[in-house]
Amino acid sequence: MIESSYYSQDVHGPYELYDIGNLDLEDGDTIRGCKLAYATFGTLSAARDNAILMPTWYSGTNKILEQVFIGKGRALDPEKYFILIINQIGSGLSSSPHNTPPPAGMANFPHVRIGDDVRAQHKLVTEKFGLNSLALVVGGSMGAQQTYEWAVRYPDMVKRAAPIAGTAKNTVHDFLFTETLVDAITSDPGFKKGFYASSAEVSEGLLRHAKMWAVMGWSTKFFRENRYKALGFSSLDDFIINFMYAYFSVMDPNDLLCMAWKWQRGDVSRHTSGDLRAALGRIKAKTFVMPMSSDMFFPPADCQAEWRLIPYAEFRPIQTIDGHLALFGADPGAIGELDKNLTELLAAKV
Amino acid sequence: MIESSYYSQDVHGPYELYDIGNLDLEDGDTIRGCKLAYATFGTLSAARDNAILMPTWYSGTNKILEQVFIGKGRALDPEKYFILIINQIGSGLSSSPHNTPPPAGMANFPHVRIGDDVRAQHKLVTEKFGLNSLALVVGGSMGAQQTYEWAVRYPDMVKRAAPIAGTAKNTVHDFLFTETLVDAITSDPGFKKGFYASSAEVSEGLLRHAKMWAVMGWSTKFFRENRYKALGFSSLDDFIINFMYAYFSVMDPNDLLCMAWKWQRGDVSRHTSGDLRAALGRIKAKTFVMPMSSDMFFPPADCQAEWRLIPYAEFRPIQTIDGHLALFGADPGAIGELDKNLTELLAAKV
Repeated sequence: MIESSYYSQDVHGPYELYDIGNLDLEDGDTIRGCKLAYATFGTLSAARDNAILMPTWYSGTNKILEQVFIGKGRALDPEKYFILIINQIGSGLSSSPHNTPPPAGMANFPHVRIGDDVRAQHKLVTEKFGLNSLALVVGGSMGAQQTYEWAVRYPDMVKRAAPIAGTAKNTVHDFLFTETLVDAITSDPGFKKGFYASSAEVSEGLLRHAKMWAVMGWSTKFFRENRYKALGFSSLDDFIINFMYAYFSVMDPNDLLCMAWKWQRGDVSRHTSGDLRAALGRIKAKTFVMPMSSDMFFPPADCQAEWRLIPYAEFRPIQTIDGHLALFGADPGAIGELDKNLTELLAAKV
Repeated sequence: MIESSYYSQDVHGPYELYDIGNLDLEDGDTIRGCKLAYATFGTLSAARDNAILMPTWYSGTNKILEQVFIGKGRALDPEKYFILIINQIGSGLSSSPHNTPPPAGMANFPHVRIGDDVRAQHKLVTEKFGLNSLALVVGGSMGAQQTYEWAVRYPDMVKRAAPIAGTAKNTVHDFLFTETLVDAITSDPGFKKGFYASSAEVSEGLLRHAKMWAVMGWSTKFFRENRYKALGFSSLDDFIINFMYAYFSVMDPNDLLCMAWKWQRGDVSRHTSGDLRAALGRIKAKTFVMPMSSDMFFPPADCQAEWRLIPYAEFRPIQTIDGHLALFGADPGAIGELDKNLTELLAAKV
C-alpha cells in the first residue's frame, strides 16, 4: 500500500465506498472485498426511473466528471435526475493497486477487464440502490467502453446509452498507443517492477507518459492555433510541466497501469465469440455515438464503423480541436454540443 | 566510433564520399573534415541544367530514396536527369556521431541544423559538380525541410521545389512528438548518456522508439483496414518486431538523435528573424507542396498554411491511408500520384 494525499476526499470531493464482497475476475483472479467508490447527485424518484450512471475514464474520478458534466440547467441536472458516478477499479478511489494491502496490492494487483467493472457496478446499482432500470449510461473514453459493456451485457436495463470518445471494441492502433503509455512508465528504472516506494520514484516515466498524452491527447490543430496558450500556458514546456505532468505526476503508476491494461482490451465481442456485429446487435438502448471530431486515437471513423452495427443509434460527432481531451471540458463549444445531444437523448421516448 | 555492418555499401549500395573540409555550424561548433555521402544516377547534360537534388529523411539513406523514387519511365528518370542523392549529416553514411573518431564522436558530436546540411550540400554541388542551377530539389519529411531550406537560402539556384510530407517551419506538435522519440532512446539505461558499446545495448529504447513510430507514422485507418497484414505481417506484434523494430534496431542511437535534434528545429524563418511569410516569400522556385493526406504529424493543414505563403506554389496533397510512412513507397497509388505531380512539375516552364 502506498499513502497518497491525492486519492482523498479532500481532492476528489465526497464519495462513499461500497463493499461488493469478493469479485471473481474474468481472467481468473479475485479481488477480495472489492470496494467501489461512488458519488451521487440528485434524488432517486419514487418510480426509480430517473437514474443516470457515469463510469469514469482513465485517470478520472468522480470529481472531474461532476465538474465537466453535471449542473443545474444542464443535461445532467441533479434537480431532475439521480446521477451516480462510479469510479472504475484501478481509479485510485475504488479498489486499486495502491490502496490494496499486501500481498495483493501494487504490482500483484490482478488484471481487471471492463466486464469485471460492469459486473461490480451492476451489483452496487442493484443491491445498494435497488435499480432495475437506468435512464442513461454515459461515459467518455474508458467510460464509453464501460457504457458499451453495460448496454451489451444488460440490454434490458439500459434505456439510453451515450458513449463519448470511445469504442466498443478497442482498435489495434489504440492498443498500440496505450502500450507506449505503459512502456513509458514501466521502463523507468525507478518503477522497480511495480514495487516503488512512491510515485516520485517513477517521475521520469510519468513525465514521458504525460508527454505522449500531450502528443496524442489533443490535436495538431490544438497546437497550431496555440490553444495551450489560450488555456493559460506560456510555452510548450510550461504546458507540459504545469498542466500535463502536474495532472499525472500525482497519480499512482500501478493504478494507471491497471486501467491501461483494461483499456487496451475493451471488447464487447467477448460476449459473442468475437462477433462484434452480434454483440452490438444486442443493444436495446437508444444510443448516441459521440466521438470528438479531432480525436487521434478514438477517431470518428472508428466510432462510426461501430455505430453502423447498433440497432437504435445516432452518430453525433462533437466538433472540437481539443481532440480526445475535449473531455476535460475546456472547449465550451464541445461541452455545449454534448449537453444538447444528451438533453435530446434523455428526452427521447424509449 | 562504433563499427556497424548496417552503415555500409553492402547494405546501402554504391556511394561516394566528398570531403567538404571543416563545416562551421550555426550553433557554433565545427565538424572537422565533414564528409557527405552521395549517390548519382544518370548523366549531367552539357548545359548542366538537368540536375535533381534529393536530400534524405530521418533514418533514410540514398538506397531507400532510389528504390522509392528513381527509375526509367518515372518522373525521376535517370535517362533524362542527373539525380544526386545526398545523405544528410547524421544519416550514418555522411559524417555522423557513430563514424566520427573520438573525442568528437558519439554523444560529443555537435548539434547540426538543417541550414548546416544545406550549406554543406551547396558546397558539394557547386565545387564537385560545378552546378549553378538545380532543375528540382525534392525530398520527403526531413528531406522536405532541406528542400524548403534550399529554396529559401538559394532562391536563384533552385528552379523547382517539391517538399513532400514536411514543413518549412516545424510545428510545436511535431517538436513534441519528436521529443518523445528522443526520450524513448535516452531513457534506456543502456544508452549511458550516449557512450554505449553497441546499438544492442540500447535495444529497449530502440524498441520503444519503433513503437512510437508505429503509432504516429501510419494512420488509424491503416490499422483499421489491416494494411499491416496486407504488407505481409500476421499480427501487430509481428509487424512491430519484424518491420518497425527490424528497421530501426540496426541503426545507431546517436545518429538518430543527431537527426531528431535537427528535425525538431527545422525553420526557414531563421533567415528572417522569425518572419515565416518573409522567408517563404523569398522562394523563386515553382513549388508543389505535397503532404500525405493521412499524415499524423505533418498533417495537410499545417502544410497548407505554409503553401499560402509561397509565391509560385500549388497544393497537391497525396491521397493515402499509409500516413507519413507512405514515403516508404508501399502504397502504389500514392507513389503514382507523386510521380504524376513530379512529372508535371518538371515539365513546368520556369
